[in-house]
Amino acid sequence: MLYLVGLGLADETDITVRGLEVVKKAERVYLEAYTSILLVDKAKLEAFYGRPVIEADRELVETGSDDILANADKVDVAFLVVGDPFGATTHTDLVLRARELGIESKVIPNASIMSGIGCTGLQLYNFGQTVSMVFFTETWKPSSYYDRVKENVQLGLHTLVLLDIKVKEQSLENMARGRLIYEPPRYMTVAQCAGQMLETEEERKEGVWGPDSLAVGAARVGAADQKLVAGTLQELSQVDMGPPLHSLVLLGRRAHDLEKDYIRQFAVNEETFDASWKNGKYGSS
Amino acid sequence: MLYLVGLGLADETDITVRGLEVVKKAERVYLEAYTSILLVDKAKLEAFYGRPVIEADRELVETGSDDILANADKVDVAFLVVGDPFGATTHTDLVLRARELGIESKVIPNASIMSGIGCTGLQLYNFGQTVSMVFFTETWKPSSYYDRVKENVQLGLHTLVLLDIKVKEQSLENMARGRLIYEPPRYMTVAQCAGQMLETEEERKEGVWGPDSLAVGAARVGAADQKLVAGTLQELSQVDMGPPLHSLVLLGRRAHDLEKDYIRQFAVNEETFDASWKNGKYGSS
Repeated sequence: MLYLVGLGLADETDITVRGLEVVKKAERVYLEAYTSILLVDKAKLEAFYGRPVIEADRELVETGSDDILANADKVDVAFLVVGDPFGATTHTDLVLRARELGIESKVIPNASIMSGIGCTGLQLYNFGQTVSMVFFTETWKPSSYYDRVKENVQLGLHTLVLLDIKVKEQSLENMARGRLIYEPPRYMTVAQCAGQMLETEEERKEGVWGPDSLAVGAARVGAADQKLVAGTLQELSQVDMGPPLHSLVLLGRRAHDLEKDYIRQFAVNEETFDASWKNGKYGSS
Repeated sequence: MLYLVGLGLADETDITVRGLEVVKKAERVYLEAYTSILLVDKAKLEAFYGRPVIEADRELVETGSDDILANADKVDVAFLVVGDPFGATTHTDLVLRARELGIESKVIPNASIMSGIGCTGLQLYNFGQTVSMVFFTETWKPSSYYDRVKENVQLGLHTLVLLDIKVKEQSLENMARGRLIYEPPRYMTVAQCAGQMLETEEERKEGVWGPDSLAVGAARVGAADQKLVAGTLQELSQVDMGPPLHSLVLLGRRAHDLEKDYIRQFAVNEETFDASWKNGKYGSS
């Protein structure tokens, strides 16, 4: 049996009781370690589970999945995923591959950032489609996400923006020379995301958002030091929200008063928040 | 401290390890028992926690929240919510009330149907806004949800439809006579939801969907006997998916091939599925 076990968002104790039982009994335990991270390291997980954990990088999952699945028709294999196994990153390909090999799968759900973002007090009902933001480079500033967000904005819906992480990436030079040397991991911050959004708007000029558009930054959702900040994109582009992981929500105009009351608690500046709320005609449907 | 603890979706073992620690130590433990249910009863939870659990109905939460919060500045109170505390139903009002009383709150996230629906293999990125479906009566068939779904359909996005539950409801007669007699609980099925959707379309006639529109029914997400079914609304209006809880996803046209491959596994009828996929121009963006 292949078990896809969600680990939740913050630390080793966010696994469910059922998930922990599976991990303790599984023959092999893999940790998907390239689309998201927990806020604790592998050693801490191993100590908590009392089991060795094999880190599964993108290459292993995408091209070596048969190694993960080896023998899983006879023994239990646990594949651990930060958040939920079918949340922001969907591991349907692994399940489909297992099925081709005649191996049954079971999923142990857990909190995903896709629902955990509800901690902002914004109603999940009022969210449109979710988008991802990648790290811009000098020469590559993709703006396809802009069209998706535009659709949400036109309907007055909130948009969850998931932020890029780079782990186990090689520099172009090391890649060209075939050297398996990896760059230090990078995690996009709320400030970087807000800054890139302002950059895209300057390029596209369709007025989907602007420096005064309201947004909420969320850092380390579900952890003891979770931090939420509400403000304009301009304000958020300068905010320091501490260690990863970060996410951002661009506020939709259909936001209602209970949502306003809740996020206003986290305003960088209550005066600019109120002014932007009024000028941006938030709260109208 | 007020702890809002997510219980996840299926049974008592879906609580997180951290959530369980909180419940075991809290002075009082409430269970929000009117917007969703676990698939096990209160006695099973009490046995698992080794603690008495107080059922909190709508009245207690909405008008008696100060009883729940009594003394919570000095002792720990756990408020248990099926799914995630800020998922489909958002308990921001309780947190805001606690704050007014000078009581701190902490949230322990868990799986919500809003992300758990990813078990269908449909990408959460491709969902638009979520809607709720209430039980129609002879004289009350609200169709405001139709306008929301229309917005999603026009963008080619999937729509998660959350289905009504009725617990601790009085009949009109008992209510008029002030008799505290409650009707047996009712949980909407996928078949009822699909039937009501076809009824609304017949009334509104804007062609947002039809009998051949594809949808996925999900029952008991996260449980051992989880059941998924893919088919046309016509087919789903006749499907028996067993005990509650049920949800439905109306498929958006932007669905891509990996999603198709995944849901096709659950097709009521692969031939009508393929025909509807083709005729409905699914898979185009």
